[in-house]
Amino acid sequence: MTASPAPLATDGAPLVVPVPLAGKAYDILIGPGLVARAGAEIAARFGAVAVTIVTDEAVAAHHLGPLAESFAAAGLAHESVVLPPGEQTKSFASLEHVVDAVLAQRRERGDLVVALGGGVIGDLAGFVAAIVRRGMRFVQIPTTLLSQVDSSVGGKTGINTPRGKNLVGAFHQPSLVLADTATLTTLSPRHVRAGYAEIAKYGLIDDPDLFAWLEANHGAVTGLDPAALAHAVAASCRAKARVVVEDEFETEGARALLNLGHTFGHALETATGYGERLIHGEAVAIGVALAFRFSAQLGLCPPEDAARVAAHLHAAGLPTRLSDVPGDLPDDAALVALMAQDKKVKRGKLTFILARGIGQSFIANDVDPAAVTAFLGTERGR
Amino acid sequence: MTASPAPLATDGAPLVVPVPLAGKAYDILIGPGLVARAGAEIAARFGAVAVTIVTDEAVAAHHLGPLAESFAAAGLAHESVVLPPGEQTKSFASLEHVVDAVLAQRRERGDLVVALGGGVIGDLAGFVAAIVRRGMRFVQIPTTLLSQVDSSVGGKTGINTPRGKNLVGAFHQPSLVLADTATLTTLSPRHVRAGYAEIAKYGLIDDPDLFAWLEANHGAVTGLDPAALAHAVAASCRAKARVVVEDEFETEGARALLNLGHTFGHALETATGYGERLIHGEAVAIGVALAFRFSAQLGLCPPEDAARVAAHLHAAGLPTRLSDVPGDLPDDAALVALMAQDKKVKRGKLTFILARGIGQSFIANDVDPAAVTAFLGTERGR
Repeated sequence: MTASPAPLATDGAPLVVPVPLAGKAYDILIGPGLVARAGAEIAARFGAVAVTIVTDEAVAAHHLGPLAESFAAAGLAHESVVLPPGEQTKSFASLEHVVDAVLAQRRERGDLVVALGGGVIGDLAGFVAAIVRRGMRFVQIPTTLLSQVDSSVGGKTGINTPRGKNLVGAFHQPSLVLADTATLTTLSPRHVRAGYAEIAKYGLIDDPDLFAWLEANHGAVTGLDPAALAHAVAASCRAKARVVVEDEFETEGARALLNLGHTFGHALETATGYGERLIHGEAVAIGVALAFRFSAQLGLCPPEDAARVAAHLHAAGLPTRLSDVPGDLPDDAALVALMAQDKKVKRGKLTFILARGIGQSFIANDVDPAAVTAFLGTERGR
Repeated sequence: MTASPAPLATDGAPLVVPVPLAGKAYDILIGPGLVARAGAEIAARFGAVAVTIVTDEAVAAHHLGPLAESFAAAGLAHESVVLPPGEQTKSFASLEHVVDAVLAQRRERGDLVVALGGGVIGDLAGFVAAIVRRGMRFVQIPTTLLSQVDSSVGGKTGINTPRGKNLVGAFHQPSLVLADTATLTTLSPRHVRAGYAEIAKYGLIDDPDLFAWLEANHGAVTGLDPAALAHAVAASCRAKARVVVEDEFETEGARALLNLGHTFGHALETATGYGERLIHGEAVAIGVALAFRFSAQLGLCPPEDAARVAAHLHAAGLPTRLSDVPGDLPDDAALVALMAQDKKVKRGKLTFILARGIGQSFIANDVDPAAVTAFLGTERGR
């Protein structure tokens, strides 16, 4: 990792991060202008496929027209399904609706589902592609920073149910990811900061040099400086791709490292209703800070590292404490119960990603719920 | 293949057919009494897992009590979900219902979904297991001849939609298949004959010796003679396992051979509403006979072989002609349109499994719909 961002290629070509999964390798292209080039990139790779675009109303207003034009220019047949924006779209009802639309359009196995949007659209459309005709190809065009650095890579797809988030889904790898960094200019600063939390997470998992680079350059990243942004997105995608290649189906453990901050974070999201009160990246930021302070309290991690993590997230405009969540939260026992309904549970013990220091995270499979309850008490000043 | 059935092992142990898929190998056990031994077999392989049994009301009346007792005796926690019998249970609504039940029972990734029933239950429960927490283990306990020789092996799971059969699903291999041949005594003779059609199919695909053995012994098989039955089920499972190992995801073609008779057959089932008017194995029998006569008309197959196929299916009490279907059928063009909405379609050409003779089936990817229409005209005597 260098101390300054790598420049974009001088010819304006996107950065390319390969994901070398055996039998289903794919590329992530990163840079400005990829929506307008999507038709050409897809036609060059997959030929004369027919496309179903899945998007939401908010994203469609900015990007559906240019995307459809690029498909038309490339001679690709295309139709779209436009859904309401928001987490409630990741439901069985939406799944059935989109599946029916894809079948009504008579798409075949080799045709494409294209997800144009953030994580909700990518997770839902990817799951549709996973199950229609037992597996169609799909392409991710993520339009949020969060989805560009996280959910669009790695093949986790799914929906929520009333019993929890992402409890239903499939592993289904995309055939291509087009991360158009120019789309991020339509995001609110709050959503840019939230996506930034996942970038910082990659440094904290196993890349202390990336974390140090972010400490020096986070303003350029969240300010959407093109070179800094492409560098940070590419570093994140490379980090995620490494883990995914090692443990595609999250069976051997390595992939669980990506959940740093997520066990706490998902509990907070469930408690706050997955809405504007606390958005995903903010929950992850608090979760990461908690994971480091929990590690420090357990004597695993130097308290200075936990403080450095919180200071950086705070400097980037992110929340780091339970008290940063607006409004009331459930009591400690109720929060721990929410963690226990998370899917990363084995035989009553909780799985957490803990850390021995910055860039030294590890999987702890046998965390006692009582220790978590005690830690939450400390956090709340009791 | 011998001219007489292999005897059951003298100690009463079941026949074992391994399915050696890399990373997810499993065994098929075949013989009488396996429902009563299910708890012990599962506990020996998977330890103290918790089990959700998925079954239907008709099967539950015969087999749910003994199965639950065997789980209790083995110390396995278990709950059941009992659904209405019939093809309409393979729906999005049932999928959501069973998924919710499995989540309500707080099953974890390593726990088991057990499918107790025929193909509808196996396909639905397997799909539930495929998508809950992005993949749980599942065990098939098929209780029909059709599911013992076909759907319980190979990992195809799914549901129907108003737009067609099996258009939504996943490839998800079972961890164990327990084919209790004693459960078949509760089937009607009609359903035994229907299952027999799939057994004959395996001989016709690539095993002329099996077909010859069936010509001599079909009465013992459909009469449920224990040794003949176990021999025929095991031969079928071995044949299917060979193809599945070669082409797990039906991408390289080999697996498509299993669809011998199914493109015609599915069109007839769609036309007749997937009900008692024409059950699946009967549709397959007609489809197989049609595939051989179509092959003969195209000059690919000796007419004597097509006649021998039809004669054997007729001797086994199965239908072999469109005119054997009670009531009216759609016209030829409408039947071909139904085939074209089947998922085995590429770029407007139909895929059929055709044959150069008995045991010499092959995949034809570019069958002209007009040739099929012309053949159907011949079949109807025009």
